[in-house]
Amino acid sequence: MSVLPKALVDHARAVITLCRDQDLTVTTAESCTGGLASTSLTAVPGSSAVLDRGFVTYSNAAKMQLLGVEGELLETVGAVSEEVAVAMALGALAASGATLSLAITGIAGPAGGTPEKPVGLVHLAAARQDGLVRPKRYVFAGTRDDIRLASVHAGLDLLLELATLPDEDEEEEDGAATDVQPPTS
Amino acid sequence: MSVLPKALVDHARAVITLCRDQDLTVTTAESCTGGLASTSLTAVPGSSAVLDRGFVTYSNAAKMQLLGVEGELLETVGAVSEEVAVAMALGALAASGATLSLAITGIAGPAGGTPEKPVGLVHLAAARQDGLVRPKRYVFAGTRDDIRLASVHAGLDLLLELATLPDEDEEEEDGAATDVQPPTS
Repeated sequence: MSVLPKALVDHARAVITLCRDQDLTVTTAESCTGGLASTSLTAVPGSSAVLDRGFVTYSNAAKMQLLGVEGELLETVGAVSEEVAVAMALGALAASGATLSLAITGIAGPAGGTPEKPVGLVHLAAARQDGLVRPKRYVFAGTRDDIRLASVHAGLDLLLELATLPDEDEEEEDGAATDVQPPTS
Repeated sequence: MSVLPKALVDHARAVITLCRDQDLTVTTAESCTGGLASTSLTAVPGSSAVLDRGFVTYSNAAKMQLLGVEGELLETVGAVSEEVAVAMALGALAASGATLSLAITGIAGPAGGTPEKPVGLVHLAAARQDGLVRPKRYVFAGTRDDIRLASVHAGLDLLLELATLPDEDEEEEDGAATDVQPPTS
């Protein structure tokens, strides 16, 4: 019996394989996806060499207490924002000792959307121990299920990207590649 | 598109509905299931009223650092044991402030089994704020996927059980109902 969609486990397997080959370890900090990223990564046999822990931080309190996200930041820009995604990714890195982290915060619906932050808005961020941080912004269409699944696929892509990017000092001068993507789909 | 099996989400919905009706909050501490329990609970719209955080503690270090499980206990009885499941459940309760917790630790395979602790051995524990703790032991058959899915179903059953059991002082005298089930399937 297959619990998760095969395409998702295949995608997770690519992350696990790449990270294992490069001696990278991964941690996850998930809000709207509720653990789907860590579930997909740990669906891969041998994943314990790569992922040793993950954080499901649904509430603001959880983001503050487990990941060290500042309460003021949450109040100012809201939990679904680039700034909080980045803070979650950096906090997860610090709280885990992993070399790579993935943070996902978004509005999976069906309720909770506003004109400014509609259902489907998802902010991701991946961070690397050497200081590289890469946020991404999406607006996904579809059901709660669709949005959660698309968020994790996008997150796995971001991990693959950070696992293959060259060292930070070979990157642009300010050290942080923060190209924010326009909304997709 | 359905990400998780419908029966799993239906099961999770029963937990969310019951807990919401009774003003109970839930947290999860997952080892072998890697977040599948929290993913299933958060697949239910409105689940944020019940689950505010979850812990994926794959390694011993994660169990110690996030849940306060004693290193000596892990060394003595091993991560897949009734004692560690109980310690994880109690640690998750303390680290979250939730009123109910579910811990899952097991050997999902395909590797990692021994004659004493075969693939499919899973220890669960649920704990309640009033001190009630209920461990369960299973040996599930099947693939890694089968074992993870069966573990979460068993865990959701355990949450339903603890959400409906009467107060601790109406229970047996020692306060902790620790009936360990024989291996099933």
